[in-house]
Amino acid sequence: MSDDLKKGLEGVLVAESELSFIDGDEGRLVYRGYDIEDLARDASYEEVLYLLWHGRLPNRDELDEFSESMAAEREIDDGVMATVRELAAADEEPMAALRTTVSQLSAYDDDAAADPTDEEANLRKGRRITAKIPTILAAFVRVRDGEEPVAPREDLNHATNFLYMLNGEVPDDVLAETFDMALVLHADHGLNASTFSAMVTSSTLSDLYSAVTSAIGTLSGSLHGGANANVMRMLKNVDDSDMDPTEWVEDALDRGERVAGFGHRVYNVKDPRAKILGAKSEALGEAAGDMKWYEMSVAIEEYIGEEKGLAPNVDFYSASTYYQMGIPIDLYTPIFAVSRAGGWIAHVLEQYEDNRLIRPRARYTGEKGLELPSVDER
Amino acid sequence: MSDDLKKGLEGVLVAESELSFIDGDEGRLVYRGYDIEDLARDASYEEVLYLLWHGRLPNRDELDEFSESMAAEREIDDGVMATVRELAAADEEPMAALRTTVSQLSAYDDDAAADPTDEEANLRKGRRITAKIPTILAAFVRVRDGEEPVAPREDLNHATNFLYMLNGEVPDDVLAETFDMALVLHADHGLNASTFSAMVTSSTLSDLYSAVTSAIGTLSGSLHGGANANVMRMLKNVDDSDMDPTEWVEDALDRGERVAGFGHRVYNVKDPRAKILGAKSEALGEAAGDMKWYEMSVAIEEYIGEEKGLAPNVDFYSASTYYQMGIPIDLYTPIFAVSRAGGWIAHVLEQYEDNRLIRPRARYTGEKGLELPSVDER
Repeated sequence: MSDDLKKGLEGVLVAESELSFIDGDEGRLVYRGYDIEDLARDASYEEVLYLLWHGRLPNRDELDEFSESMAAEREIDDGVMATVRELAAADEEPMAALRTTVSQLSAYDDDAAADPTDEEANLRKGRRITAKIPTILAAFVRVRDGEEPVAPREDLNHATNFLYMLNGEVPDDVLAETFDMALVLHADHGLNASTFSAMVTSSTLSDLYSAVTSAIGTLSGSLHGGANANVMRMLKNVDDSDMDPTEWVEDALDRGERVAGFGHRVYNVKDPRAKILGAKSEALGEAAGDMKWYEMSVAIEEYIGEEKGLAPNVDFYSASTYYQMGIPIDLYTPIFAVSRAGGWIAHVLEQYEDNRLIRPRARYTGEKGLELPSVDER
Repeated sequence: MSDDLKKGLEGVLVAESELSFIDGDEGRLVYRGYDIEDLARDASYEEVLYLLWHGRLPNRDELDEFSESMAAEREIDDGVMATVRELAAADEEPMAALRTTVSQLSAYDDDAAADPTDEEANLRKGRRITAKIPTILAAFVRVRDGEEPVAPREDLNHATNFLYMLNGEVPDDVLAETFDMALVLHADHGLNASTFSAMVTSSTLSDLYSAVTSAIGTLSGSLHGGANANVMRMLKNVDDSDMDPTEWVEDALDRGERVAGFGHRVYNVKDPRAKILGAKSEALGEAAGDMKWYEMSVAIEEYIGEEKGLAPNVDFYSASTYYQMGIPIDLYTPIFAVSRAGGWIAHVLEQYEDNRLIRPRARYTGEKGLELPSVDER
């Protein structure tokens, strides 16, 4: 046992993986050999899921079959819908509602009792989980907002169907393609905290539902998935202040506040996903004839780069992109889960192939050998 | 970044902790300075919870106030009870049902929106979670078995009240004290996988409900909390076979099977908790005038010790102890959760005091720089 304390596990290699490669110095992200820029431009979320789960890109027939099998799994059971309604009535946070209802899905899965390492069963479970998360989320939002859930449509792709269920109308091509691209960009990213929590959970040979439930809870924290919503709240505050963005940020830094959306454990340069989303944010602003959010973001990026030497991460330009798409701010983190579910499942599948219980140690800094006094002697 | 692969994180120190000390060579377990033998003999589960959460043993007044505040939190909301009934009707696994319903508890907690690192709010949440887990579990079992839930009683201690809610009658002193002791023994054990998953989850500054939900899912695996139930299933198989226990185990080993309840990542000698539970199993056998399960366990312990050089862990003698207490086998792992919730919460509280995002790395073993072919070129 090494005596070095590895709090945060920075740089500690806990697995070998063929899923995603991050070059933090070059600002490069690769899924199974393919650069993220190429995938974002030319591949759909369904193609990326197939790539991550099956190890290679699907041909036309494989993609059609895979997409259809996913689409056929979108409906959720009445018991889950009852919990969605109950949680919406109780004013539950969207990420907590997702955690509870995704956990509940196992009760209705005929494969739930399968050996947790059964690959075919896990691929079926993975398709079900990934297909049902958007249905749950859209239903939760609509019920919360006093509307009835919209049933999923099998003839729409994953991204388009989610926006359809959320808004009750089929989105235009720009919205649908932008959302599909955002799903591609967020699908996997090495052993981020939520993915790692899924691996710790599954390392005891617990099942895929437990692993994904852990990951949702982990993603909900402000240091992980919660950051994109915090960026948008900041941009809104800047806008409300009528101050120059750089002055607002300067004041915030002077107050000792952390500016969300900058810096990353792995990247030393600009996150390649931030570049892609920045361009998309700009395009959405141009299409709408309102460059406010994009220009504000650029001003803050430049200021933080000069003052702090920090580059924006994926959360920074997700914020203005989602905002211009009309997505409610408290859905930004759940949308991250809609996409990252694919990566969580891929890593758990990979881990089950050669599993080892993940059990580190703590350095004990307390006392030893104390005499136990009776309660009346204390 | 070190190039060593630390799969399983064996021996890797990821935190400093004052909570529990394990000496794997001496077979010693200490909670905050006190040896487990002393605590098992003289301290109640409520005293151990206070010790873990508050850093010292309570005096009489503090213990009374703490116990009362826990007992006052035992009732569960109607929404949670509805899910308990739904999951029982859907024939959900007990650990999965616990994962879903504990996750749901956050919807009804007025402190759910507090800063996740707010210690006072977390102590309240911790008391609520720990108080409600037995209520959920007992209700689930009774509904599943076609009976109505039994409401908790505030005048009984944590252990006694659980057995009362489970069976509908107040247990005798031997049963109540044995169960209380089992809760004390299982309350904490360093950075086991479930505790570590709670820490990974909370390291993103997600909340205590997310952390405990992750831990329940992690505990459910057969390499962790599932082991005690597997020990009892083995003992029942041995009994049904009419074979000599050592012959049965010899055959099992010849078939390449793993014998549950032996060996541990941390202990090189007999787990001190196994010693305490072994004595309890023996005492229960003597009281019932039937030494079958105890003697069978001892024979297997001796055989595995000679053949494999492995010592029994906590799960091995939990099995015959719980069985002789009349607890259904598929509740052994949930009972582990009833107790370990205290340790999970203690570690999360400790981590929030000086949090750091837990994010390790994977060694990428896949390809890079592949050209993305169009779907019709594949």
